[in-house]
Amino acid sequence: MSLLIVGTVAFDTIETPFGKAEKVIGGAGTYASWAASYLKDNIRLVSIIGEDWPKNELQKMNLRGINTDGIHVVPNGKSFFWIGKYADNMIERETLATELNVLADFDPKLPPFYKDSEYVLLGNLTPAVQMSVVEQMSKRPKLIVLDTMNFWIDSERDSLMEVIKKIDILSINDEEARMLSNEYNLVKAADRILQYGPKYVIIKKGEHGALLFSKEQMFFAPAMPLSKISDPTGAGDSFAGGLMGYISSQGKTDFETVKQGLVYGAAMGSFCVEDFSLDKLQNISTQDIAKRVADLKTLSQV
Amino acid sequence: MSLLIVGTVAFDTIETPFGKAEKVIGGAGTYASWAASYLKDNIRLVSIIGEDWPKNELQKMNLRGINTDGIHVVPNGKSFFWIGKYADNMIERETLATELNVLADFDPKLPPFYKDSEYVLLGNLTPAVQMSVVEQMSKRPKLIVLDTMNFWIDSERDSLMEVIKKIDILSINDEEARMLSNEYNLVKAADRILQYGPKYVIIKKGEHGALLFSKEQMFFAPAMPLSKISDPTGAGDSFAGGLMGYISSQGKTDFETVKQGLVYGAAMGSFCVEDFSLDKLQNISTQDIAKRVADLKTLSQV
Repeated sequence: MSLLIVGTVAFDTIETPFGKAEKVIGGAGTYASWAASYLKDNIRLVSIIGEDWPKNELQKMNLRGINTDGIHVVPNGKSFFWIGKYADNMIERETLATELNVLADFDPKLPPFYKDSEYVLLGNLTPAVQMSVVEQMSKRPKLIVLDTMNFWIDSERDSLMEVIKKIDILSINDEEARMLSNEYNLVKAADRILQYGPKYVIIKKGEHGALLFSKEQMFFAPAMPLSKISDPTGAGDSFAGGLMGYISSQGKTDFETVKQGLVYGAAMGSFCVEDFSLDKLQNISTQDIAKRVADLKTLSQV
Repeated sequence: MSLLIVGTVAFDTIETPFGKAEKVIGGAGTYASWAASYLKDNIRLVSIIGEDWPKNELQKMNLRGINTDGIHVVPNGKSFFWIGKYADNMIERETLATELNVLADFDPKLPPFYKDSEYVLLGNLTPAVQMSVVEQMSKRPKLIVLDTMNFWIDSERDSLMEVIKKIDILSINDEEARMLSNEYNLVKAADRILQYGPKYVIIKKGEHGALLFSKEQMFFAPAMPLSKISDPTGAGDSFAGGLMGYISSQGKTDFETVKQGLVYGAAMGSFCVEDFSLDKLQNISTQDIAKRVADLKTLSQV
């Protein structure tokens, strides 16, 4: 079972009340791939970078079973760069600068051996790029998960809706779910979104956990209460990576499997925020993950 | 096992985006007693009202096993009256008027047969009133739960801290926990509050569920995602009533029992918000409760 991940591979400069990290590695594709790599081998990453992105970080990915042939390196190009600052509550954040750089011309060409991937995670990118990846697949994957953001819901709604018709799971946060569905109540928002086509919708509420809905069932995965949160950047991407790493490792797509996937997603998201950039996510063991998953299961077990 | 509840018995006028209820029955003591009454008999309610509070509502309470001898009726007095309006998100609310009326002179005198109650719920009132009730008990109850609010944390911190030393469980919301502990992080806030004396602290996060902490353990009870929320008034009091109703019915105070209590609290809180005033809480069956509790357990079961 192969897992294809499409997402940014980038630099971030991040300021939080607990410190600052200057031009460190980041990007949705980076976080999601690292998170998935502890649960799944045979991962294929599609992205675009400039020559400034560190080669040894690509090698580290390869050592973890992440194939990077699908990362297009633009000669003399500069990688996508985001500068942001978090408020004291570590939830609200301000974008200080966004340098699209090579991402502005991202038109992914999948290596031929990527095209039969059975599990696909479409990270937050323009709906046109997401659709292009779907159309390049040689056969319908077993499961396609899509992430998006308020910007695309607002500015590219029609093309986003076209992609949403082609996927199995939409994974978005609570505000985006409200915006997409025009329903404030999250149960109603999920009902509406399920009518758009996906089989499941996941509504992420950050530190308040995540909800999973199908037409018949509902599940809630709490987030791990942590005494130290250093940097929330990448938490949602790590969640998606953990989710897809687990699901693709099981080879099943039923509600029960996706439920378990949410717990693995919550575990990987909780590691991500414990340090800046990939610092924690690159330094955990399978034992750490097993313990965090067990703790998450105990947390709400009655 | 007897359960003593101290709290307001009052009138509310409530406006939400879904409707308005004019001068309907309310009050923390009313909500908590009704919620507890489905799980426990032998409930004793201490409060103060004016002659304007409907006698048939007292009779309805009596029929449900709630003794109201501890409710002092002030001749020609007017009952406590709160007027509030909820924002579109049904979380933020504005107090339009607070008429203390008879509550201004509330100096509870416990009927002698109340004084041996084994379980005590001290609803949100002045710390002096809460302390007076504790001091009137003829023997140390098995479990005392205290609710409070930002107003008392701010204006009566010293006397509140004295009461907190005498109780077993502090039940407050996330903002109050932060204010009381001077810690933003809820895990750290709970740690700090446990140092003040209570054996357990419950941090209520409204629609995002509730956390239970002891020095060694942590538990999270999700709130039920509902497609219809009519009126959030009394949800926290119904939660406290469900919690104490369950715990006192079990006659145990260990972590496992309190955990289960949180689920019963979440169930009763979820019924409360489905209609205005006590309209839903007065019209449920034990079957409804068993089903809601089962649904809550399924919701986060992995």
